[in-house]
Amino acid sequence: MKLYYSPGSCALASHIALEESGTDYEAIRIDFGSAQQKSPEFLEVNPKGRVPALVTERGILTETPAILFYLVQSFPAVNMAPLDDPFALAEAQSFNSYLCATVHVAHAHRGRGERWAYEESSFEDMRKKVPESVSACFQLIEDTLIEGPWVLGDTYSMCDPYLYTVARWMEGDGVDINRFPKVKAQFDAIEARPAAARAIEAHFEGV
Amino acid sequence: MKLYYSPGSCALASHIALEESGTDYEAIRIDFGSAQQKSPEFLEVNPKGRVPALVTERGILTETPAILFYLVQSFPAVNMAPLDDPFALAEAQSFNSYLCATVHVAHAHRGRGERWAYEESSFEDMRKKVPESVSACFQLIEDTLIEGPWVLGDTYSMCDPYLYTVARWMEGDGVDINRFPKVKAQFDAIEARPAAARAIEAHFEGV
Repeated sequence: MKLYYSPGSCALASHIALEESGTDYEAIRIDFGSAQQKSPEFLEVNPKGRVPALVTERGILTETPAILFYLVQSFPAVNMAPLDDPFALAEAQSFNSYLCATVHVAHAHRGRGERWAYEESSFEDMRKKVPESVSACFQLIEDTLIEGPWVLGDTYSMCDPYLYTVARWMEGDGVDINRFPKVKAQFDAIEARPAAARAIEAHFEGV
Repeated sequence: MKLYYSPGSCALASHIALEESGTDYEAIRIDFGSAQQKSPEFLEVNPKGRVPALVTERGILTETPAILFYLVQSFPAVNMAPLDDPFALAEAQSFNSYLCATVHVAHAHRGRGERWAYEESSFEDMRKKVPESVSACFQLIEDTLIEGPWVLGDTYSMCDPYLYTVARWMEGDGVDINRFPKVKAQFDAIEARPAAARAIEAHFEGV
């Protein structure tokens, strides 16, 4: 498999999950600095002009929750989702949906305001709100969503690298992760996993 | 099961899927006009203060992609997802992730700007951009995502009531659905399904 990514983007979650899976894969860096994600070559891979994109033998997958779910289905022995328990699996999907539809979106208003407005004054106003909206998301995660020590409780799952990935954005968003003890403990626990640490190092190499 | 919904919200997708499933369920309307979704009673059901929320015998599920996936797993005979094909199932999840993280979010900038900014001038700027951003989403769906006649091709799936639900917002967003022939044909085909038509009628009753 091939993973297209940009350092620090939400593609980090898939990068970690691939490394955890133990499979052979190639990680291909896309340079956002030169807008490579909007190049004709990359738009052939992903017409959305975004990362991640996962090239599989069956075709190309996009959207982090779907890539993570595909990886856990493809490597069930890695046990990164409760595949035999429909309710628990739906809870995991719910968590990842919240990250992509609410937490990632709150964060994106810091640097991607042009997706949703035209004026610099609006972008500035959006940036001002990010610490508040991102804090509210992590407060909800801390209070009601994360079981601890991992997102789903005692078992590491596909939700964990994704939460870690969006939690990395908090510092730049002006939010102190130490306000959220369960999130912080999960964050540190991810970095202590050898496979995750390898993926993180490769992901940010030379950045 | 019990579904908490507000008329015209993304909960319509779950409402249709429940009716398609053939199961007994109760649909409970939440009055956004009086901010019932922020009431202490409802925050006990869903701390996010949003709909949909699905009460099951195992607990409460939120987030449309997760609820839809739970329903298709619970009623496999209804055949609303390719449960035996990991890649096809991931593609379905990818489609629903795009709807929740990008299409719904683009639309929400018309009426929910206070989630991401403070100033009325920003909300007005956001509202101006909605026709452009929502159009771009549906152009991508038309050109690259919807197979036709249904989202995944010949088989009706959990992606269809969700696409129908967000496509209903286009008119209010200032986008003509007729610009997107596959989306329009899918929209009409949904309304021709007896179960979907029953759900839509009940959903909007008295509105």
